[in-house]
Parts: sequence; C-alpha cells; structure tokens
Amino acid sequence: MPVSLGALATQFGCELIGDPDVEVGNVASLQNANAQSLTFLSNPAFKEQLSSTKAAAVILRPADAEDSPVTALLHDDPYACYARMAGVVCPPPAFEPGVHASAVVDPSASVASSAHLAPNVVVGANSRIGENVYVGPGTVIGPDCDIGDDNRFIANVTLARAVRIGKRGIFHPGVVLGADGFGNAMTPEGWVKVPQVGGVEIGDDVEIGANTTVDCGAIEDTVIEDGVRLDNLCMIAHNVRVGAHTAMAAMSGIAGSTIIGKRCMFAGKGGAVGHITICDDVIVGAMSFATKDITEPGTYLASFPAEPAKDWAKKVGRFRRIEALQKRVKKLEEK
Amino acid sequence: MPVSLGALATQFGCELIGDPDVEVGNVASLQNANAQSLTFLSNPAFKEQLSSTKAAAVILRPADAEDSPVTALLHDDPYACYARMAGVVCPPPAFEPGVHASAVVDPSASVASSAHLAPNVVVGANSRIGENVYVGPGTVIGPDCDIGDDNRFIANVTLARAVRIGKRGIFHPGVVLGADGFGNAMTPEGWVKVPQVGGVEIGDDVEIGANTTVDCGAIEDTVIEDGVRLDNLCMIAHNVRVGAHTAMAAMSGIAGSTIIGKRCMFAGKGGAVGHITICDDVIVGAMSFATKDITEPGTYLASFPAEPAKDWAKKVGRFRRIEALQKRVKKLEEK
Amino acid sequence: MPVSLGALATQFGCELIGDPDVEVGNVASLQNANAQSLTFLSNPAFKEQLSSTKAAAVILRPADAEDSPVTALLHDDPYACYARMAGVVCPPPAFEPGVHASAVVDPSASVASSAHLAPNVVVGANSRIGENVYVGPGTVIGPDCDIGDDNRFIANVTLARAVRIGKRGIFHPGVVLGADGFGNAMTPEGWVKVPQVGGVEIGDDVEIGANTTVDCGAIEDTVIEDGVRLDNLCMIAHNVRVGAHTAMAAMSGIAGSTIIGKRCMFAGKGGAVGHITICDDVIVGAMSFATKDITEPGTYLASFPAEPAKDWAKKVGRFRRIEALQKRVKKLEEK
Repeated sequence: MPVSLGALATQFGCELIGDPDVEVGNVASLQNANAQSLTFLSNPAFKEQLSSTKAAAVILRPADAEDSPVTALLHDDPYACYARMAGVVCPPPAFEPGVHASAVVDPSASVASSAHLAPNVVVGANSRIGENVYVGPGTVIGPDCDIGDDNRFIANVTLARAVRIGKRGIFHPGVVLGADGFGNAMTPEGWVKVPQVGGVEIGDDVEIGANTTVDCGAIEDTVIEDGVRLDNLCMIAHNVRVGAHTAMAAMSGIAGSTIIGKRCMFAGKGGAVGHITICDDVIVGAMSFATKDITEPGTYLASFPAEPAKDWAKKVGRFRRIEALQKRVKKLEEK
Repeated sequence: MPVSLGALATQFGCELIGDPDVEVGNVASLQNANAQSLTFLSNPAFKEQLSSTKAAAVILRPADAEDSPVTALLHDDPYACYARMAGVVCPPPAFEPGVHASAVVDPSASVASSAHLAPNVVVGANSRIGENVYVGPGTVIGPDCDIGDDNRFIANVTLARAVRIGKRGIFHPGVVLGADGFGNAMTPEGWVKVPQVGGVEIGDDVEIGANTTVDCGAIEDTVIEDGVRLDNLCMIAHNVRVGAHTAMAAMSGIAGSTIIGKRCMFAGKGGAVGHITICDDVIVGAMSFATKDITEPGTYLASFPAEPAKDWAKKVGRFRRIEALQKRVKKLEEK
Repeated sequence: MPVSLGALATQFGCELIGDPDVEVGNVASLQNANAQSLTFLSNPAFKEQLSSTKAAAVILRPADAEDSPVTALLHDDPYACYARMAGVVCPPPAFEPGVHASAVVDPSASVASSAHLAPNVVVGANSRIGENVYVGPGTVIGPDCDIGDDNRFIANVTLARAVRIGKRGIFHPGVVLGADGFGNAMTPEGWVKVPQVGGVEIGDDVEIGANTTVDCGAIEDTVIEDGVRLDNLCMIAHNVRVGAHTAMAAMSGIAGSTIIGKRCMFAGKGGAVGHITICDDVIVGAMSFATKDITEPGTYLASFPAEPAKDWAKKVGRFRRIEALQKRVKKLEEK
C-alpha cells in the first residue's frame, strides 16, 4: 500500500531527512531495494551495503544518518521501527465479510457479520466468531469455542473444542488447538484414557506457527497469555501456562503442567519437562531442556555444538573414561 | 452425564463411604470442585487440599479415607479409578449417524449406517468405514483403508492410503497415517524415489495425538499394536513396529524398521535410530535416543539438564580439555 | 502394472539371466515374494534369504548371480535399480483430469485442463496449476502460487501464499509451505510482528514429507533447490536455502537464513542454527546441530547414545566433577 514517508515518520515518531512526499510501496533489503522500497539498517554487518542502496528510504540509527545515500528515517531501534512501518506498507491481505456457500455453521453458533468464512470452513455448536475475524479455507472451529475480534486463521487450522481466544491473533496452517492432552492411567489391562475436559485459553495478540499444537487441559485450562509467539511445530502440553510475551522458536516443547514466565525465550528445539516453574525472563538454548524449577532470570543451556565425527568420537570416548582417569589420580594421590 | 455414586461404585468395584444416591455431573480438581464434582486424590502432594474440597465425592486410597471431608470412593489406584469413572461422567461427545451432504464417498467405498461423516469428509476407493465410527470435519480417508468399529477421527485427519485400523481408536487433528516412507536411493543423477507400497496396520484401542505421522511401509506394513499411545508431533517411520501398550510422549521419533517392544515408554523428544530392536518394558528418557539393540528392560538416558549458561560453558570447556588432563596425569604417572 | 522382465532389463540396462517374457506385477521382500514379484538383494545381511525366495525375479549384483534360484537382473547398484523398476511396476496412482464440483477456484486463477482437483480443493487468486498436476482432497493452494507440471499434493496440503514449485514434486499430507516466518521485533510494548513478504521457491523433483513446514522469506525467498528430500515433521525457516539433492530425515530443523550446500544429509532430529553456511556434502548426525559455518565436507556429530540410566547418571556426575579432578591433578603437579 503506497504511503508517504512523511506520513510514516509522523505516525512512528521518526526524524525524516529528505522529501516527505515520496511514497514507498514495498519493503526490500538494502541490496535489492528499488525506487519504491522502504529498507532498514539495523545489524552493522550490513552497513557496507548502505552506500549502494537504491531504496526510496532507509530506516537507520541517527549515528548512521550521514552515511545514507538516500532519504533517511532516524530511529534508535531501526528493526522495530521497520517492523511497524512494514506493517503499514505491507498490511495483511484485506478480505470481504461473508460466509462462503460451502462453509457449514452449526445453527447454535454465531458469526459476526463482519467476519469472513472461507470455503469449507466448519463452525461447531455453541461457538462464536467475533468481528473482522478471517477464517481461512478448510479451517475447523469445533464446538464451544469463543473467537474474539480481528483474529486470523490462515487455512486448515483446527480448533478441536473449547478454545477461547482474545483479539488480534494469527494462527498459521496446520495449527491444532484444544486436542486432548496426553492423559493415560496404566492398569493391568493396559492404558486407560483420562478424559481431557479442560479447554484452552489464549490471550490477545498471540501468533502461533504452522503445525504447532496446544492441547486442552486435563481438568482446568491450558493458558497462553497475551503477546506470546510460538514458531512452527511446537508442542504445548495440557495445563501448561505460557507467560505473556514469551517466544518459542520452532520445535520447542513444554511438557504438562509446567508454568513458563513472562518474556522467556526458547531457542529451536528447546523445552521443559512437566510440572516445573520457570520464572520470567529466562532463555533456554537450542536443543536444551529445563528439568527443574528455574528461579533466576538468565540463559540456560545443555547442548553441545556438532563437530567433526572423529573429534566427537574421541571426546565421547574420553567422557566414558573419566572414571578410569579418576582412579589413576587417586592412585597418584595415595603415593 | 449425571450418574449416581452408587452406580459408579458398583461398576468399578469401589467401597463407597457416603450416600449412594448423590449424583455427580462433572470432574474437577480437589481445589475447584463443586457440589456436583467427582474428584480424586492420588499424588500425596495434593493431600493438603483434601480437607477443604467442596466435591460431591473424592476417589482415594483406603488409607486416606478418614481424612475425607466428603463422600469417599475407595480404590487402591485412585488415578486409574478416576480415569474410568471420568469416562462415564464425561463421555466422548455423542453423534448422530449419517453422512453430511458435503461429504464425498467413492462409489466403491462402504460406510456403515451407524457411522457419522461430518462436513467435507472424503472417503476414497475401496475403503470401508465400520459401525459407530465418527469421521470429523475435513478428514480424508484415502483409498484401500479399512476402519474398524467405534473409531473417532476428530477433524482434519488424513489417511493417505492402505491404512487398516482395529476398533475404538482415537485420532486427533492433523494426524497423518500411511504417507510415503522416506525411501530414496542415491544415484549419480540424484535421489531416486523408492516406491512405498506397504500399508499401515493399527490395532485396537490406539490413540494418536495431533500432528503425529505414521508412514506406510516400504514393502511390508508399518505396525502399531493394540493399546499404543502416541502423543502429539511424533514420527513413526516406515516398517517400524510399536509393541502393545507402548506410550510415546510428544515429539518422539522412531526411525525406519526399528522394532519397539511392549509397554515401553518414551519421554518427550525421545527416539531410536533405525533397524534396531528394543525389548519390552524399556523407558527411553527425554531428549535421549537409543542407538543399538536394547535387550534388558530398564531406563535409558543420554541427555543433560539445562543449567546456567556460564556453568554449562565451563563444563563444555573442561569436557573439551579432558585429553589435556589425561596427558597431565600420564606425565605425573611417569615421574 | 504387469511388465515383462525383458522390458525392464532393456529400459534400465541390466543383464537378464532367465526368461524375458515373464511378467512381474508387484514388488516384495526376498522372503515374502510370490511368482509375480520383483525383489532385490542389496544388503548382504539378507543374502541368506536369497536361496529360498519364490520371486519371479531378483535384482542383484553380478557377483551374486550364480546364487539366485530364480531369474536374475544384474546391476551394480541393485537398490537404485530396484527403485527405478519399482517405479514402473508400482507407478503412482493414475487420475482423471478435471475439477471436482466441490473445488473452489478463484476466477483469477488458472488450472491446466489435464490437472486434477479433488474434492474440497481451494485455489486462490492469481495462482496457476500446471499440466498433469494432482491436487488431493482438502488441499489449499493460496494466492500467488505457481505450480509447475506433474506435481502431486496428496491431501490436506496447504500453500499459504506465494509458493513457486518446479516440476514433478511430491507433497505429502499436512505439509505447509509459505506460512509466515518467525519474525518479531522486541519493543517495550512486547513483540511487534515483522511482516513476512517473501515467498518460497522450490525446484524440480522435490519431495516433502508429512507435516513438514517451509516458511516464506522475510523479504526475499526461502529456497529449496532441485532434488531435495525432506522427511516428515521437518522445519525450514525463513530465508533458508537448501542445496540440490540434500536430504533431511524426520524432525530436522534449519533456523533462519542458513545456507545448506548440495548433497548434504541430516539424520533424524538434526539441525543447524540460523545465519550460518554449510558447504556441500556435509552429514549432520542424529540429534546433532551445527552451530557455526562448516567449510569441510564430512560427518559432524554432537550427541550421545542412550545408555542405562545408572551408568549415564555416573557419567554425568563425573562430567560435573571434572573441575575437581583438574584441581587434584594440579595439586599433584605442584608437589
């Protein structure tokens, strides 16, 4: 959506060095920008590309202003400023209100007249779809769900049942919310299923990535607080609580009943065992998992970087022989 | 479904201390129970909540009976007893038999008259849907599948082809059964696909979690035996056999042709490499994977708990320098 | 599809020892083959099954020819030869051209007359479906996609938007291509979404396994080159490039902007952090992840095999006490 630099600068409180009437209509990298592009310089590693950019305008820190060969938008956090401006230049796709003829809505459900139900959407009994909600093709909203205003379900999302969502969320294809938690009691006759009767409660401004699953609670709800970001293929088990503004990179998994604080970050394939509490502002590293309560903010790790197989094999061999080494030291000490 | 405590006690062989005519209509935790609630005390950690519970009845061990402020149902395994009673109080949702107008059933397929096909269900050629099967919205049952009685496919499940399922299974949204195994032959021209012509055979009473995948066999079948429980986002590769009553927590993965025994358990992100055999009653820990045959029941591990990054970095550094330490010890020994 | 051994031998350049007019109509293992079966012997571990096979013909190395009790097809790489011949004997299912009545195609989209759109398929604005493309039930092809000839989408696949695919690809159920990358800028008010405006570009002859996700690029495209094989439940993040003929086993994950070379292999649950470059011909082991550029071909590892819990606990304990051991050695050295 073409927008003038002056309008952007005013809306997001930037100083503008250049012509406020120039319009930008796309976003691009410094290197590939054209005369309609808005771009940004945040990571100093890309500074060398600044001098040759063909962008209409670049968002950068005040200290970099004089090096810009094009119109500059000055901001102390160019990446966050870019995120906001790009949201104006490249807004999410518009949609028409209405229910496609192939959508199937239970008579007991309610759908706001401003909502869009795409082909093959199914809405179950007693569910409510709020204002300006986009429900993409193939999405199934099961029974007893409550979907607040301005949510977007891109396509083929499934809400099994009893999922309540605040406002302005984005749910990518393949997301499954509210499926049964993994509750089983062992008996001499084998596993007996423990009925999973809780729901899922999701706050405002939550985004959940493709094929991620958030199970319903066993008795009470699984909770995802405001502003949480879950990447693709993550797993949130029953009765977990994920604190506000916590972000998890792809393939992270949190086992049942664990409480995650606010503003935590999990790197890819991170995780936590069940029934523990992790305080606010904790970072769990890639392929690492927390096994007990964490009460101090900070970074927690437990993984090794891959190295050449021969070197790794030697290290593993030595690791296996630490005991022998201990014995040799003990023998020396006894002498 | 409201049911009297007397009926529950009789059905599941509990001693009842209290009024058999009182009815329960929901399940709840000790803490949040109300006058219609059935609850339970299994984990001693929750014992302190017993005295203040407002439940209609609590299932607990005989030894705890006298501490119950409300009607008590006595059982040596309160959790298993709760699982069974909760299945009566909160049964899976009922459904009407019938095929929704939007469902597409191949003329060569057969669907029992007691089965329910929800909107947008597709049933492929030569497939059979048994009695009382619930096929939820958006589910695709590909060709040559055989679905026994009383199975439930919640929504958006996909059976690619040639999947045979026993009775009483539950398949959560996003589950994919019978997709091609990962069979490729390297050639000078690149990978050549190895056609995957086997099927998937699934026993009775199996439950498979959201977005889990079970591939078809390369030539013969992939097999999931009776009573198996797979949590979300697990992967069962081609020609694996998972023994009866084995349970895998989320994100577990078993590589091709591996044989898993009965009553095994895999913790979250557990796994096994391909072409090995794991005996009955093996537990594989979280983020650990078996790399060779396991012939002795027991617990197997290979993961480290996350710890503060500074501490971990020191340990990794020392791990890398074990060799140097060995040399120093050798030098001392030579003196 | 029944085919004569003579025709197969001619097509794939094998020497045939036996009757060229015999037809094979299925593929089977040595052990379970019948008089219509084509089978193969590649792994010497199965050699003992050769003498008793009931197959019509067996593909094997010239050196094994005289041990074959049945007609032999001689090839230096029996497994690759089997892959190719099995592709003839067991071709992918045929389909009729045409658009099912329940499919919904945007008026601005184009669908080749030889393509097949199954029930409940949705094709978005400005998308193109090439010749002989099979789009299975429930598949959603979002807007601005370009699908080359001879691709197959088995069922319930989702292309969110802006995905361009070459020819002859296979996309298994639950695959999600082109969903938003995980781009978020932290601000004092919480995460701000960074619009993800790039697309996904996929080459020819790519196969992607069930429930795998490939995100769109943040600004420029995510790229999967020709001949790539991704198994189930893998994750390719925004702006990753996966080099031609690279294969990743299930649950592998590559973080954003990482460049993977050609002919690399990732074992199950392998991966790489973001913003690194991995050269051609690298193998990353199971549950191992690359954390920095790899410039030398070879195998890279960082995982431990699971072992009995008691043994592992001892090793972890010793690992934790390496520092103490170092101190004891130092003390000895000082003496």
